[in-house]
Amino acid sequence: MDKHNFDNEAIKKHLELKGKIEVNPKGSVQNEDDLSIYYTPGVGAVSKLLSESPDKAKDYTIKSNTVAVVSDGSAVLGLGNVGPEAAMPVMEGKAMLFKDLAGVDAFPICLDTQDEDEIVSTIKNIAPVFAGVNLEDIASPKCFEIERRLQEELDIPVIHDDQHATAIAVLAGLINALKVTNKDKGNCKVVIVGSGAAGSGVARLLDKWGIGDIIMVDSKGIISSQRDDLDENKQKLLKVTNKNDINGSLADAMEGSDIFLGLSQGNLINAGHISSMNSDPIVFAMANPVPEIEPNIALEAGAKVVATGRSDYPNQINNVLVFPGMFKGAISTKTKEITDEIKLKAAENLASVVEKPNTEKIIPSVFDSGVVESIVSAF
Amino acid sequence: MDKHNFDNEAIKKHLELKGKIEVNPKGSVQNEDDLSIYYTPGVGAVSKLLSESPDKAKDYTIKSNTVAVVSDGSAVLGLGNVGPEAAMPVMEGKAMLFKDLAGVDAFPICLDTQDEDEIVSTIKNIAPVFAGVNLEDIASPKCFEIERRLQEELDIPVIHDDQHATAIAVLAGLINALKVTNKDKGNCKVVIVGSGAAGSGVARLLDKWGIGDIIMVDSKGIISSQRDDLDENKQKLLKVTNKNDINGSLADAMEGSDIFLGLSQGNLINAGHISSMNSDPIVFAMANPVPEIEPNIALEAGAKVVATGRSDYPNQINNVLVFPGMFKGAISTKTKEITDEIKLKAAENLASVVEKPNTEKIIPSVFDSGVVESIVSAF
Repeated sequence: MDKHNFDNEAIKKHLELKGKIEVNPKGSVQNEDDLSIYYTPGVGAVSKLLSESPDKAKDYTIKSNTVAVVSDGSAVLGLGNVGPEAAMPVMEGKAMLFKDLAGVDAFPICLDTQDEDEIVSTIKNIAPVFAGVNLEDIASPKCFEIERRLQEELDIPVIHDDQHATAIAVLAGLINALKVTNKDKGNCKVVIVGSGAAGSGVARLLDKWGIGDIIMVDSKGIISSQRDDLDENKQKLLKVTNKNDINGSLADAMEGSDIFLGLSQGNLINAGHISSMNSDPIVFAMANPVPEIEPNIALEAGAKVVATGRSDYPNQINNVLVFPGMFKGAISTKTKEITDEIKLKAAENLASVVEKPNTEKIIPSVFDSGVVESIVSAF
Repeated sequence: MDKHNFDNEAIKKHLELKGKIEVNPKGSVQNEDDLSIYYTPGVGAVSKLLSESPDKAKDYTIKSNTVAVVSDGSAVLGLGNVGPEAAMPVMEGKAMLFKDLAGVDAFPICLDTQDEDEIVSTIKNIAPVFAGVNLEDIASPKCFEIERRLQEELDIPVIHDDQHATAIAVLAGLINALKVTNKDKGNCKVVIVGSGAAGSGVARLLDKWGIGDIIMVDSKGIISSQRDDLDENKQKLLKVTNKNDINGSLADAMEGSDIFLGLSQGNLINAGHISSMNSDPIVFAMANPVPEIEPNIALEAGAKVVATGRSDYPNQINNVLVFPGMFKGAISTKTKEITDEIKLKAAENLASVVEKPNTEKIIPSVFDSGVVESIVSAF
């Protein structure tokens, strides 16, 4: 597979547009009367009303339908800690997709701080404007605590979608991949590489779903109780992974496994890893922009189903399938927390958008009709 | 004058729109190729580029042209400390006008804090997204320190437009009002009621312009050195006002004055105050939404020129004449600070948009052509 490289086109397009989104008036101010209604003096009556009933801001202002897409630039795509400016094109892209796919207004907020307390206080301070907060590309483990604290302190949905949306998309893909390969979830051994926000969210959801066993692997090898270098998040993951508490390397984990889920970095595994897996292995190499293994190499080495995070390969497992509907659903039903029940339902719904799954189509395209609605209807 | 009341229409319109602005994609994501260019994998190349050269965000992202309109809701219109939700309709209205009048994208940020340090740190933290910061409706005296600190710490323009844009609009109106009344600026005695952000900004600019004398009045009376209740801002104002250091009430100040500038609250002065002024008095009653005196009462009491802050009376002195061009100019010329020279030039330019000033037209309408350009060309 000799794939098209979009880098130059993307750079050219971004320079041409100088920003992928714009802020437009809904009505037009053409004359003195318009000005009197949209601005002074008429706006004073609306301000007075909201000073008496601040909760009505959701009916009279953009708080009705606007999501803050917030990142501190500490874990952008597979690029890592690249800072707030470098996070902007990703957050603007998300804002485009929010509007195009689900009719939700979204605005990027990229933060010039990576301190947990400052991130929390900044988001709390700007919350009056927003109907929801989409935490995005914030490094693990602080992302977990930031989400927890904001969910506790704010009365709008705060969702770290690397954890939740990605988990729903991965599970939807797996549901269909197991159908295609005739595997039974209770007997499957899954290797997850990457124990950041996405990997952790996927592991927790697969456990709830009833997968056989999950082996998580980080840069030091298999995560087991015998390691003494585990942070709090990794220690907690032991409760839902590695039932037999095995030790070893990535290669040890891969041997005899049914499913590989890569949420880590490009070019991490090779053909040898794939051929050591069980029969009809399922390989989701989802690192962006470079997958853990090129799909053609995985297929030649015996993979039965291959998915990536990229839109230019078949089977794109990307949270863009989930986040527009997830916020649309959360805002319209005033749901503050995305529970496991919602996630399992959303994954089932999303999987069922593909009527007849096959190895090249285990997950709908983001452009297939019914995708957003499948997520919204899980709320 | 029996004026139209816009309150009910404004409330109805705001409830219908549920927010006066929206966030729209500039390009459209229709297929996998679009997704690859605007989002993954292509966006990774743009992020990588910006991680190496963060200053290029102004060429590749909405940082090129987007202003944050920031308020803590502590001094909204003439309504006072009404909180962040109640500030939203005003800030959204400003965002509409930024785009409609000057093509500048603007997004409202209403803060759930009124603490100076938190306001400063929150704005600093979200600054990577923006080309400029419009501080708005923040109470005096903290507004001065917030502006000063942010100008020092950020490399984008930070402008409190209640101080600067209002001063430019008032001076533009005065330039033409003096022409109409044949008054000489050096001999004029001006009474300014309201020593908040707007009143202070106007006093400082009129002093630079060379007005005869300025008497400032607050709720306790004339601001003089003999008062022992003056905050730091009011003490500083003594350097540019009250040359003879007189004491007294609002009525004492009005007697024998040439110009009344109201930047305070509705229904503050009466016909008696006006008739005690010099011949051909100039009355700018700019409190919003209710002026310090109704124009018809002022005219009947002998006022020669009357202006208000409202769009439904003649002679609207409103910072909407200035802020769109002021930010367009500051962004395009990379001007961080709005100097006195820029302000004096902008006021002269704005005044000259009215070709033949008369008592009913001392200031252009915001819909007159050339208004935005008159401000931009002062940079």
